[in-house]
Amino acid sequence: MSQLRIGLAQFNPTTGALDKNMSRILEQTRSACAQGAHLVAFGRLAMTGVGTANLSERLSFRTAARDVITQLAERLVADGMGGATVVVGGIGSDETGAVVDRVFVLHQGAVVTSLDTPLKGSSAAQVPAPAAVSFEVQGKRIVLSTSISNGQGASSDVPTADLLLIVDAAAYVEGRPTANQAATARSAAAAQMPLAYVNLVGGQDALVLSGGSHLTSATGSPVARAGFFEEELQVLDLPAQDTRPGPSQGVSPALDRNAELYAAIVVGLRDYVTKNGFRSVVLGLSGGIDSALLAVLAADALGGKSVVGVSMPSAYSSEHSKVDAADLAERIGANLVVHPIESMVDVFTDALDLQGVAEENLQARVRGLILMGLSNSHGHLVLAPGNKSELAVGYSTIYGDAVGGYAPLKDVFKSRVWELARWRNNYALDEGLIPPIPESSITKPPSAELRPGQVDQDSLPPYEILDAILAGYVEDNHGRGELLTQGFAAEIIDQVITLVDRAEWKRQQYPMGPKLTRVAFGEDRIMPITNGWRETAPHSNDNQPHQGAEHDAP
Amino acid sequence: MSQLRIGLAQFNPTTGALDKNMSRILEQTRSACAQGAHLVAFGRLAMTGVGTANLSERLSFRTAARDVITQLAERLVADGMGGATVVVGGIGSDETGAVVDRVFVLHQGAVVTSLDTPLKGSSAAQVPAPAAVSFEVQGKRIVLSTSISNGQGASSDVPTADLLLIVDAAAYVEGRPTANQAATARSAAAAQMPLAYVNLVGGQDALVLSGGSHLTSATGSPVARAGFFEEELQVLDLPAQDTRPGPSQGVSPALDRNAELYAAIVVGLRDYVTKNGFRSVVLGLSGGIDSALLAVLAADALGGKSVVGVSMPSAYSSEHSKVDAADLAERIGANLVVHPIESMVDVFTDALDLQGVAEENLQARVRGLILMGLSNSHGHLVLAPGNKSELAVGYSTIYGDAVGGYAPLKDVFKSRVWELARWRNNYALDEGLIPPIPESSITKPPSAELRPGQVDQDSLPPYEILDAILAGYVEDNHGRGELLTQGFAAEIIDQVITLVDRAEWKRQQYPMGPKLTRVAFGEDRIMPITNGWRETAPHSNDNQPHQGAEHDAP
Repeated sequence: MSQLRIGLAQFNPTTGALDKNMSRILEQTRSACAQGAHLVAFGRLAMTGVGTANLSERLSFRTAARDVITQLAERLVADGMGGATVVVGGIGSDETGAVVDRVFVLHQGAVVTSLDTPLKGSSAAQVPAPAAVSFEVQGKRIVLSTSISNGQGASSDVPTADLLLIVDAAAYVEGRPTANQAATARSAAAAQMPLAYVNLVGGQDALVLSGGSHLTSATGSPVARAGFFEEELQVLDLPAQDTRPGPSQGVSPALDRNAELYAAIVVGLRDYVTKNGFRSVVLGLSGGIDSALLAVLAADALGGKSVVGVSMPSAYSSEHSKVDAADLAERIGANLVVHPIESMVDVFTDALDLQGVAEENLQARVRGLILMGLSNSHGHLVLAPGNKSELAVGYSTIYGDAVGGYAPLKDVFKSRVWELARWRNNYALDEGLIPPIPESSITKPPSAELRPGQVDQDSLPPYEILDAILAGYVEDNHGRGELLTQGFAAEIIDQVITLVDRAEWKRQQYPMGPKLTRVAFGEDRIMPITNGWRETAPHSNDNQPHQGAEHDAP
Repeated sequence: MSQLRIGLAQFNPTTGALDKNMSRILEQTRSACAQGAHLVAFGRLAMTGVGTANLSERLSFRTAARDVITQLAERLVADGMGGATVVVGGIGSDETGAVVDRVFVLHQGAVVTSLDTPLKGSSAAQVPAPAAVSFEVQGKRIVLSTSISNGQGASSDVPTADLLLIVDAAAYVEGRPTANQAATARSAAAAQMPLAYVNLVGGQDALVLSGGSHLTSATGSPVARAGFFEEELQVLDLPAQDTRPGPSQGVSPALDRNAELYAAIVVGLRDYVTKNGFRSVVLGLSGGIDSALLAVLAADALGGKSVVGVSMPSAYSSEHSKVDAADLAERIGANLVVHPIESMVDVFTDALDLQGVAEENLQARVRGLILMGLSNSHGHLVLAPGNKSELAVGYSTIYGDAVGGYAPLKDVFKSRVWELARWRNNYALDEGLIPPIPESSITKPPSAELRPGQVDQDSLPPYEILDAILAGYVEDNHGRGELLTQGFAAEIIDQVITLVDRAEWKRQQYPMGPKLTRVAFGEDRIMPITNGWRETAPHSNDNQPHQGAEHDAP
């Protein structure tokens, strides 16, 4: 009995592109077989991609998704790879006709076994599925599961075997890659079996898949790990099933928290742009921290030449905002265009007599209109610069700075924006390169510059306090009482949660962006817009308008 | 044993406003008791309102929602109504701690029994709930259920009783009120029991509740029915449990299909405006059919004085478009303001050199900017005029005509827009009033008027064909093959479904509007934006950009 060799194919599918995905799966299988693999495993939903939503319920797509598995099995035989066992995720229909996430085990042109999991976002009944199935390769018994938590129960639920194989398609959340690896190590040690974990990678709309596929010895120690956020095929030998730590077969380094988050945003942005057929992006450059970090992320994702930064100074723009925008563009090799907005703003204010917040929003909307005009003329994707703190409290102008097809920072709190900016500059320094973000963009007080001398803290608490309250109110869904217990001042709590509640209508129209935290707006937190509930004044919640007449603040 | 008298309280709650809802529930119970009711029934979720989404998972809200039921029970006793049995919907927690939709039966200050149903949109496990519970009032046995389908199984599943009581909170869908009444008639006849059905009423974000609460005799014939789309308290005597049709106690007339749909839109719009604290709405008046119907709907919902129509002619606007806008405003008593856009458009085209589609979108966006400026200055809610056909094919300018807080027509196909307009004018004629919509707005060829001589059919198939294809592709999720079988031309199918697929990103940013059909955008149909699946070219779906560089068409 020869040693079992395994290919862990960390794959970046394009959702819906069945034929393209099939061709690339075939290609990676060929490469793994050429390296002697007997078993090649892809993640869940590798054939269809994640996030198919209602597409997975259309008969034409379901039929094609079924047929493409048959085609793959046939092609494997025709191309001389019928002897390899290929584990690949797709979709299927259960006995009720509902769509399910199905992992197929292919061998010699046939489906040897398969494993169903309820498909997230489908209307399928949540039928309990078997936790695992098993099959043999090269005389070794493989137990296949689709979730780490199933693996955790391995010691009691799972029959003794030679390898526990977990195929996954888990949406990225900060810290999850590390937690996943710890969980699989525990599972392997508990089951006293080697464990292979294979995950998808890449961006798909609001989801980012992190990769980090790995092989763990029967003692729970790492034998091999692929990189994060990039495609990689690892071909590995099954470690001995005893208590010796197996020899390392190449363990990619773990990422620190900023490197991990930064890389997640970059891959989400790159895949949104390229998978949707764009070649360039456009964004406003205000000289502020959000647009600066966004431009650097875009340059890292696509190259500076594919980034168009637009400086749109108004009568209220400071000299440094123009200088910082130009400095940034030069550092990252982006294209800079300058469109002063004063004449455009004036023609509206003259005709409409707009003042106060209305005039502030007007400036932001004139800028949005310029960006969309450039997008329509030149085919750039517009990136929206809003961060999670701004989205939370509605500190953004709908149809103004909120325009865009994709919003890379929408799930990043403002305090984390600064942290990422500093991390990115230090990373450059460590590499002996010029830090991409002008220091003054990081250190100056944040300002929308929509009226003379305006700074964000005129109307918001300091961001470190704001973000701490938002973590409680938004991510933990804590009420006012729990926030008071955490020691925040009542007036600040009331200010913040009132702003958050009033901004729901704007959030529901905000562009898509990558989910990065446990509770992302749009993906995980939907509140009623029409909402009579008042945390701030329990039991007198009857008479106050909620959304209010003031539709938005700058 | 005296005759049982029942109060069916068709109630319009405000979501989240627990205290306000409690006070009004108490008030309606008082009124029913004053009319001799022994049993007063409100719909499911009457205390919390529908669509609480993630709010229902917040501990502060869950606690308050539990406490308010206790308070109601205590207030009933304190106010001398403890002897009445009150059936009222709210939320509760099941044994796993998950939030559930719970109907409480209150009597003498205590919860006599309750009935749980999984809460739509919560993350609660879908635990199977009992189909029905029963309790006694005045020596009569009442079987309580929360769904008509539970009621349908009454003859076999439900114990023999004196009354089958179904409490509901069903989202309106065209034709459902009629179907519901037919279903309850069948249930009553099958169970040989009188049946009372009580539903909520009113608008809540994208949901409309239709009312239509009714009492059916043991033979299935209608004894009483409340009106549709308005609050009403009916106090009724339990019909005899025999095969005689009971005497009518007031059956409101059924609505024809146009009257029903029109009323649903009006109540959704009125409740969105008033529950969110607005006093007026603003919309662009182009002289076209969509904005004309929208303005009339708004005037019917709020009164013409609360409607601001803005005529924003460009260099390409026809004379009749200005005349028709003014004529409409006069017919409905709306305020008309005129803001020509030529000077505003020119300042952008001069600075940016925008042409073609970019310039067409610019005009729409200048108009959007004007409407948002008026909203910010005067506190009007902006209404977006888009219909379902336009949303489907992306025939709308994002951040242009798509701006707004609420979009009353977004789930109405264009061909139905005309039908509703004609119906509304005929209704006025039947009442001896002036038809509100100028005839030429109905009869002229639809045009966005963004370039000289432009009409919609330059770039779209005739609407009757477009809408028929959309019914198949969007509502039935049919693929290309099924559409071909239905007899549509291949080129037209391919054109339409390509447009629909490419517009997903714009739909996901479109304002909220009422769900009126089985499959409403935003509520029931979400597709991946990044989507490699091509109905139009099966099995060669790999290389074409999907979203494409052209971000939007006018």
